[in-house]
Amino acid sequence: MSAFDELSRILRERHLYGSAAATLGWDQETYLPPAGVEHRAAQLALLSGKIHALGTDDAFRAALEAAEDEGLPGQQANLREIRHHFDRATRLPQALVEEDSRASSLAKAAWARARAENDFPSFAPHLEKLLGIAREKAEAWGYEDEPYSALLSGYERAATTTEVAGILETLRPQVAEIAAAAVERSEAVSADCLHGPAPVEAQQTLNREVAESLGFDFGSGRIDATAHPFCTTLGPADVRLTTRYDEADFTSSLFGILHEAGHGLYEQGLPGDDAHLPSGSSVSLGIHESQSRLWENHVGRSRPFWEKWLPRARELFRHLRAVELDDFLAAINRAGYSFIRVEADEATYDLHIILRFLIERRLLNGEIRVDEVPAAWNELFEELFGMSPSSDAEGCLQDIHWAMGGLGYFPTYTLGNLNAAQLFRSAMADAGVSAAFARADTAPLLAWMHDQVHAKGATLLPQELMESATGTPTRPDAYLTHLRERFL
Amino acid sequence: MSAFDELSRILRERHLYGSAAATLGWDQETYLPPAGVEHRAAQLALLSGKIHALGTDDAFRAALEAAEDEGLPGQQANLREIRHHFDRATRLPQALVEEDSRASSLAKAAWARARAENDFPSFAPHLEKLLGIAREKAEAWGYEDEPYSALLSGYERAATTTEVAGILETLRPQVAEIAAAAVERSEAVSADCLHGPAPVEAQQTLNREVAESLGFDFGSGRIDATAHPFCTTLGPADVRLTTRYDEADFTSSLFGILHEAGHGLYEQGLPGDDAHLPSGSSVSLGIHESQSRLWENHVGRSRPFWEKWLPRARELFRHLRAVELDDFLAAINRAGYSFIRVEADEATYDLHIILRFLIERRLLNGEIRVDEVPAAWNELFEELFGMSPSSDAEGCLQDIHWAMGGLGYFPTYTLGNLNAAQLFRSAMADAGVSAAFARADTAPLLAWMHDQVHAKGATLLPQELMESATGTPTRPDAYLTHLRERFL
Repeated sequence: MSAFDELSRILRERHLYGSAAATLGWDQETYLPPAGVEHRAAQLALLSGKIHALGTDDAFRAALEAAEDEGLPGQQANLREIRHHFDRATRLPQALVEEDSRASSLAKAAWARARAENDFPSFAPHLEKLLGIAREKAEAWGYEDEPYSALLSGYERAATTTEVAGILETLRPQVAEIAAAAVERSEAVSADCLHGPAPVEAQQTLNREVAESLGFDFGSGRIDATAHPFCTTLGPADVRLTTRYDEADFTSSLFGILHEAGHGLYEQGLPGDDAHLPSGSSVSLGIHESQSRLWENHVGRSRPFWEKWLPRARELFRHLRAVELDDFLAAINRAGYSFIRVEADEATYDLHIILRFLIERRLLNGEIRVDEVPAAWNELFEELFGMSPSSDAEGCLQDIHWAMGGLGYFPTYTLGNLNAAQLFRSAMADAGVSAAFARADTAPLLAWMHDQVHAKGATLLPQELMESATGTPTRPDAYLTHLRERFL
Repeated sequence: MSAFDELSRILRERHLYGSAAATLGWDQETYLPPAGVEHRAAQLALLSGKIHALGTDDAFRAALEAAEDEGLPGQQANLREIRHHFDRATRLPQALVEEDSRASSLAKAAWARARAENDFPSFAPHLEKLLGIAREKAEAWGYEDEPYSALLSGYERAATTTEVAGILETLRPQVAEIAAAAVERSEAVSADCLHGPAPVEAQQTLNREVAESLGFDFGSGRIDATAHPFCTTLGPADVRLTTRYDEADFTSSLFGILHEAGHGLYEQGLPGDDAHLPSGSSVSLGIHESQSRLWENHVGRSRPFWEKWLPRARELFRHLRAVELDDFLAAINRAGYSFIRVEADEATYDLHIILRFLIERRLLNGEIRVDEVPAAWNELFEELFGMSPSSDAEGCLQDIHWAMGGLGYFPTYTLGNLNAAQLFRSAMADAGVSAAFARADTAPLLAWMHDQVHAKGATLLPQELMESATGTPTRPDAYLTHLRERFL
């Protein structure tokens, strides 16, 4: 047995515990009875401790060092990534890890209450605490340009604040301009044609048929209902999507499923035998989100897609029988300013992200204080959207991310949009892919994504992956072209 | 911290892993995508190993011995039971445990195939293997009268073959006589009135209302659908029932839920803070089954119950609107001989158990060989039921128990019937319980079961529990009286 095999053995055991914990987490969101929460928390705390220990203890360190000394040529990318994650995990003092876990637990509960009661001051001390912990973590992890990079790169491997700030600065004026034009044009468009009786069962039928036709394998996956839709992977052949149903608008669950199925297709496309290794793992949130946005927006809001699916939707939902394809497409692609990020359309979405990035970066650099967040939010919102939220509940309290200690997470949404457009453009440059796509046959598109993205796992860094798949690192141009084509 | 606290700490950790494994097992039966089975098996194997090690290793032995030396007066029953289970677990050589696990895995697959193809000879070598392992286990565990006791007492703590054989010998002629009369009387009764369109949603509504009215707490439990109904406990406030739906007969899922809810009420009634200790655990299968049979048969097939629920059922199922209460009661309480145990009615059920007990006891004692099982089964079936199965699929291959190595399990079903009748008689001797029951108010009955059975956990041995609750150990008389009243 090679030293790498021994390292793999430990990682496989760790992955078994990790996927067991993921299953308990999935159950908690879908089916756990309310009173079962306390015991579930105790189970998850035990498993988390076990998983952390298996990946950081002396036995793991020794196995990793032995595998590095051995230096199997085929495992260099895996060894690089395993070392990276080991170093990140072991650079944090145990006391800080525990404080972080406790503080974010309390902050999540405080946030939910604060949002419900529109009471930012009651949440502020928690955010202050998490901000302090985030700064300590950034110092422990290290960074080249500024502390924010240490956090950001936990979600987007090897990304720096300088790069991301550059991209968002380029985007800001152009997205603002496109959004303004799109919103103006959309004033003449009504979404009324989408609304009508949509029994859950009929939505489930359509969602399943669509997901299946895109290549989502229900032999290795399923769909359940939750308040907050997500995709989670419980094993190499067990990918679970969730959605929620609006019985007056079938597009809500359908676009949700297109988004989550995009994540799911990536997960189902990873090399299953390597599920415990970087080579069988997704590479970053910005790449993951590219897959969800690709299927949701580039495929799911396209004309060929609805040429195929509108007739089927008309069979399931009577109110669509009088709706023409052009009106339907206009309705699903209309734009409007809104206060809530998760309800934002494609044209305005990135403005929400830019705002959050500007605020969290300033917070971390000490340029604004926690108690100044609501004012900073509202001022920026006015600048970007030309309107101001009437309450913090629909302003700076709307997202859970900061309450989870997730500073640095938001930019990956916009990176996902950019990557999606850039990957889609490159795929469509293949005549076979684009000819099939024109007939709503997306099998060649999926095969392209599989070869260029899914099959790579995390053996390339995100920007190496983008270069290898599209010829350049992530740039705004493909995305801006896409937005202009869609909205102008 | 006392030595007992340290022992408890280990048991609590073990219980967290155990309940995590139970959750994965539940998911496997309810929602796991087909291709996820292999990874799930690997997760469960890892967790089983961990759970076994935590309860048998040197650290556990030392903690147990220290707690025994400490001898806290309030923990004597827990210490007795913990010692008992530790000794049983550690008396088996590791090689035998692994061989057993492998052999029963293979046997289960072979059994499913053999049953589908009515091919006993292909299953025989597996049964032979498991029989050999069962004999080895019995020798390792030890017994007073005969090897069968060592297996039986794994399901029914402290039970002996001699006792159980005595009870079944007493029952056999009397049950046979009652069954014959019941079957004859039932010839004039038709079950047609039960049959009619029963949409799953309407069944779910009724099942939930009924389970809730019996006291099943949906804040700490739920119902899902599976091919084979069961009740499983995933945590002290997380009890899950399953059922299956026949869309032409609502009574199938309803009586299934009454049965499983009986198990669930026991589980929800156990002292939750002691879930990791014997004092918070169920005591035996024969007591567990008493609770399911009590709510299924003594409550759920009674006149007061249907005086309350038939009007509600008529609202949900139109075909019942023309059905009178007396005809309905006659239909749900009719008897008939059938080949399949799980479809058997109350009057004939124990004949199926007696047959299995006679065969497995003889097998274990070497009085018959594995290849003689089909002939022995058919001959006994003819004796007990006056008819003979036309195939082994509806004969000796029908149950999974032997394929799981579960020799000694079957008698606990009949012990459950006896215990149910005896506990019900004692509860009804309380004027408050019986007066309420006459109005279909079962809250006092549940409170009685809670005090006399559920709250005790496993601090009393099953027969001590029966004595404490009813004044005598398990005897056939209350059950025979019940059968006579119901069927004659």
